[in-house]
Amino acid sequence: MSIDSRQMKLSAYLVGTGMHVASWRLPQAHAAASIDIDYYKQLARTAERGKFDIAFLADSLAINEFSHPNILNRYEPITLIAALAGATERIGIVATASTSYIEPFNMARLLMSVDHISKGRVGWNIVTTRDLSGNTARNFGAEEHLEHGYRYRRANEFVEVVLGLWDSWEDDAFVRDKESGVFFDRGKLHRLHHQGEFFSVEGPLNIARSPQGRPVLVQAGVSESGQDFSSKVGEVIFSIKYDFEEAKAFYDSYKVKVAAAGRNPEQVHVLQGIMPIIGSTEQEARDKRNRLEALIPEETGVEFLSDYFRGYVDFAGVTLDDRARDAGLDRLEMPKTDYLKHRPVIARENPTLREVYSLLTGSFSGDDLVGTPERIADTLERWFKGRAADGFMLMAPSLPDGLEDFVDRVVPILQQRGLFRTDYEGSTLREHLGLPVPANRYARTGQ
Amino acid sequence: MSIDSRQMKLSAYLVGTGMHVASWRLPQAHAAASIDIDYYKQLARTAERGKFDIAFLADSLAINEFSHPNILNRYEPITLIAALAGATERIGIVATASTSYIEPFNMARLLMSVDHISKGRVGWNIVTTRDLSGNTARNFGAEEHLEHGYRYRRANEFVEVVLGLWDSWEDDAFVRDKESGVFFDRGKLHRLHHQGEFFSVEGPLNIARSPQGRPVLVQAGVSESGQDFSSKVGEVIFSIKYDFEEAKAFYDSYKVKVAAAGRNPEQVHVLQGIMPIIGSTEQEARDKRNRLEALIPEETGVEFLSDYFRGYVDFAGVTLDDRARDAGLDRLEMPKTDYLKHRPVIARENPTLREVYSLLTGSFSGDDLVGTPERIADTLERWFKGRAADGFMLMAPSLPDGLEDFVDRVVPILQQRGLFRTDYEGSTLREHLGLPVPANRYARTGQ
Repeated sequence: MSIDSRQMKLSAYLVGTGMHVASWRLPQAHAAASIDIDYYKQLARTAERGKFDIAFLADSLAINEFSHPNILNRYEPITLIAALAGATERIGIVATASTSYIEPFNMARLLMSVDHISKGRVGWNIVTTRDLSGNTARNFGAEEHLEHGYRYRRANEFVEVVLGLWDSWEDDAFVRDKESGVFFDRGKLHRLHHQGEFFSVEGPLNIARSPQGRPVLVQAGVSESGQDFSSKVGEVIFSIKYDFEEAKAFYDSYKVKVAAAGRNPEQVHVLQGIMPIIGSTEQEARDKRNRLEALIPEETGVEFLSDYFRGYVDFAGVTLDDRARDAGLDRLEMPKTDYLKHRPVIARENPTLREVYSLLTGSFSGDDLVGTPERIADTLERWFKGRAADGFMLMAPSLPDGLEDFVDRVVPILQQRGLFRTDYEGSTLREHLGLPVPANRYARTGQ
Repeated sequence: MSIDSRQMKLSAYLVGTGMHVASWRLPQAHAAASIDIDYYKQLARTAERGKFDIAFLADSLAINEFSHPNILNRYEPITLIAALAGATERIGIVATASTSYIEPFNMARLLMSVDHISKGRVGWNIVTTRDLSGNTARNFGAEEHLEHGYRYRRANEFVEVVLGLWDSWEDDAFVRDKESGVFFDRGKLHRLHHQGEFFSVEGPLNIARSPQGRPVLVQAGVSESGQDFSSKVGEVIFSIKYDFEEAKAFYDSYKVKVAAAGRNPEQVHVLQGIMPIIGSTEQEARDKRNRLEALIPEETGVEFLSDYFRGYVDFAGVTLDDRARDAGLDRLEMPKTDYLKHRPVIARENPTLREVYSLLTGSFSGDDLVGTPERIADTLERWFKGRAADGFMLMAPSLPDGLEDFVDRVVPILQQRGLFRTDYEGSTLREHLGLPVPANRYARTGQ
């Protein structure tokens, strides 16, 4: 594929009333959206109308009372994508699921089942569940959160088992010969016999490979161990950076890691998370952002920050209009990846605590992405052509309008510029992404 | 409810080409049906056209190479019902899921999520997974099958945790007050803080109760411990008996157990599994049965029986046309519930080994259920009015015809006789079954 024909990949992050924590308070917001299946089907259809590669569902295995209302009462993502598969025809559907609190046999089965249900449109966003509060661990019999190294060792072996189980049956194993009464070829059935540090799994899986072979593996590229892990198996990588140089540095170093792992860097798509706010004029867009910011309840924001920085900062007597530097947030040394990721931008821009809250809850929209459809298309084109991204994860601050506006007003510009498809090229997620169907590990020798 | 207005409950067991092990070899059979989502959607719609209460999905967590081809390559049931929810409007959808190999938090979440997706139409068929071969255990890190008493102790605690998690949020917990910025009432959020023999689960669940409160609990009433367990929590009980007296004895003793557990026996529905073969004449129906029996491959049948009776019977030199008594199958003492259940009928009727194979693989159709639609309706009426059943689980020997014939030819007779509904009374599974929405355990005191 030449540089000229290289096409942007787009994923729509679907979450209730939107990424912004206060989006549910907008007058037009459907405040119960997070548990309305017809609403989610409509969002997925909108993304499909925009020819998006992916409709993406995040997850969490516990609640945080002080954070995002959209995720207090939510669908389990694998069942949700099974439902969305029936409401759409072409778009890929990606569910987030953690390797830390379930058996790999169950995970392999749930995901392959939905991959069949969707006729080959599923992706698995592999997470290991950061859980510093221990809230998740305590839902699964553990006293405290699972340590980082442990989680990644487990995740590595977990994915190895899942991939192995997915190859249990060769593609031509089921002969179904009515005449002879032979339903399958026993030589093409394979037991995994896995024995490892965490798991002992005999196999086979009781479901065959799907029309795209197996689900696409998706990963967020945050921590170093996360990147080491994902560079070996990830096919779509998702990251959030707030400026071009940072994004480009990540993109370049990540592609080097993929190559070092012996894989083709062109077959790993790096998507940058974006939170655009679209207006007919720059002013209209800025007003929208200000309106959202102003809706963050003072009490919720301060409670969240107190909880997040517990042991490091005392927020007594502080308001959300105070500046980050005054609270010392530009220079803390604390072991939270999220915070460390945002510390440079906090130090540089000295935002209000309201904006820090937005940053930490994933609701921050930078100036390059607040404006007219042209301005947003310009930013995306610059990042894409400059090889800071292979595409974007649209984390619309408010939904459904943030997705509808993007589909109706930004996508046509990207299409006119030859940066994005005008129709789907195929019917599976691997086809959308230009990824080949992985061969079954047993197929050559037939053993 | 008076005796006269008592209505039969019907559930359709959906499994590929049908319950009969050789059904896939019929000339018209869709041999790849077990992994064709459009086929399953069509089956569910047919059952809905027949106003069935339930579309039922069985499960297994390992394969048996010598048994039923329909279950070698199959969907995972919870994802499957999530997909069927979107293809139907009213019918209840029940997924089988074992308590033995997953964490209760995950199970509570998956099931409640589908219950929301379907707008309150889900049931959970609770199984503990008999696994005498150890095939399942070896997929989940265990060396051998889990012992019966252990599985039931775990199942009891598992269901207790799931029910507790389902009550995490009171029905009016989410106030979503845009003006004040209050999304939920903290007084109506409840943590379970469960500590037991098997599980330690803090909660809350990150999903609220559904339109029917929670999924309907379904159970098979086979073993004594199974019955003790299900009489405490089951709302639909599923059993297979081959004659009226046996069925009636089970029904009566089971309802006594339900009453002894302090519950209303009218709010627990006992469904008897039936495998009718429908013909325009008695002869046509018998011919259908014979055609199916003749399609059982000799080798498969003998291998299955050798595996099943390993250590008790040597099948060398035996054919499927030999009689059960000659192989000693009328009088074995072996610890397999399935066999012990069938031993009386084997001793009484001295069937061929082909028929024993059918019995043990759940493919046997007794004479009362092989014949014209009228004959079958007569049998069901007798069992229903005679209080040997509150309804039936239709396990059609071949699909889709066995379901279509029942819907088009038997259901109208049952309706004419006033035994079965002509339309749905409501929109949730609890409404179909006449079961009230269970109160949230915290609702009265508001704590």
